Amino acid sequence: MDKKALLSLSCGMYVVGCSLNGKRNALIANTVFQLASKQPLVGVSISKDVFSHEVIAKSGYFSVSVLDSDAPMDFIKRLGFDSGIASDKTLGLCTAELSGVIVFLDHACACLAAKVIKLVDCQTHTLFIGEVLDAKLLTDGKALTYTAYRDNKGATPRFSPTFNVEPLQPLGKG
Amino acid sequence: MDKKALLSLSCGMYVVGCSLNGKRNALIANTVFQLASKQPLVGVSISKDVFSHEVIAKSGYFSVSVLDSDAPMDFIKRLGFDSGIASDKTLGLCTAELSGVIVFLDHACACLAAKVIKLVDCQTHTLFIGEVLDAKLLTDGKALTYTAYRDNKGATPRFSPTFNVEPLQPLGKG
Repeated sequence: MDKKALLSLSCGMYVVGCSLNGKRNALIANTVFQLASKQPLVGVSISKDVFSHEVIAKSGYFSVSVLDSDAPMDFIKRLGFDSGIASDKTLGLCTAELSGVIVFLDHACACLAAKVIKLVDCQTHTLFIGEVLDAKLLTDGKALTYTAYRDNKGATPRFSPTFNVEPLQPLGKG
Repeated sequence: MDKKALLSLSCGMYVVGCSLNGKRNALIANTVFQLASKQPLVGVSISKDVFSHEVIAKSGYFSVSVLDSDAPMDFIKRLGFDSGIASDKTLGLCTAELSGVIVFLDHACACLAAKVIKLVDCQTHTLFIGEVLDAKLLTDGKALTYTAYRDNKGATPRFSPTFNVEPLQPLGKG
């Protein structure tokens, strides 16, 4: 199998936000997608080894902020490669509530809030399927694609569902 | 809810292939994504109302061909807006077998074959989760994105999981 072929599957770059008992967290995800449209459903695949997995599973809610094509690499690295367990990596970030769910606004062109309705075991990852509670366009910016991020020498954390080739950086444990 | 915000979720354009008892079928999908990487898993969300749904559910296998950025609109329309129930819309198309699964090669830059390991009910759609049996790069072409397709006035069939706004064409029942 040529795992590089799997990189041909197009995806975007997102901040997935969540909170539990007043502690908030965010991670960078590229595997966010719409599953149904009549009553919109979205899915996000998250490694069982990262902190956000526990927070989303226990709280039952998550948000997705679509990163703008001009989102700085440092911002992505900060949320994508540091863990939120020991310290609050979201300190100082701009947030809002959408249907009661914390949403991260920095460098986002659109966002949505979702209520988890199903957890699907995908071996190393869990696919969280959420009913979209609300969705908003924030700017008229263009969404950052995973391809553009990689073309800009962005690395893929070991915990990403699309970790198919050698990483440029060691890990991400959001 | 502003459903247009959901269009900010990046996706690609794919031919999903399948066959049952010698009858083959293909449809255009944009909701194909990788869910896990160690043993690669992919998901594809397909309307319960289209013919391919029945074929994939009964056969337990599907293929994904990643459309190249120069794939002609007529080709996409043919596979995306006609149904394969009454006639064979794949007649004359170039195919191959990958791990025993039929794969459509026209205008594809990469492909994969998958065995269904889980069906997840998503109301109007079923998410088929497949273990990737094999994956191949076919050309060094760039993958067509859903955004580029729409920018080229490509329509979204009513049965798509991302049918969030008015269609330019009435339906697709692949």
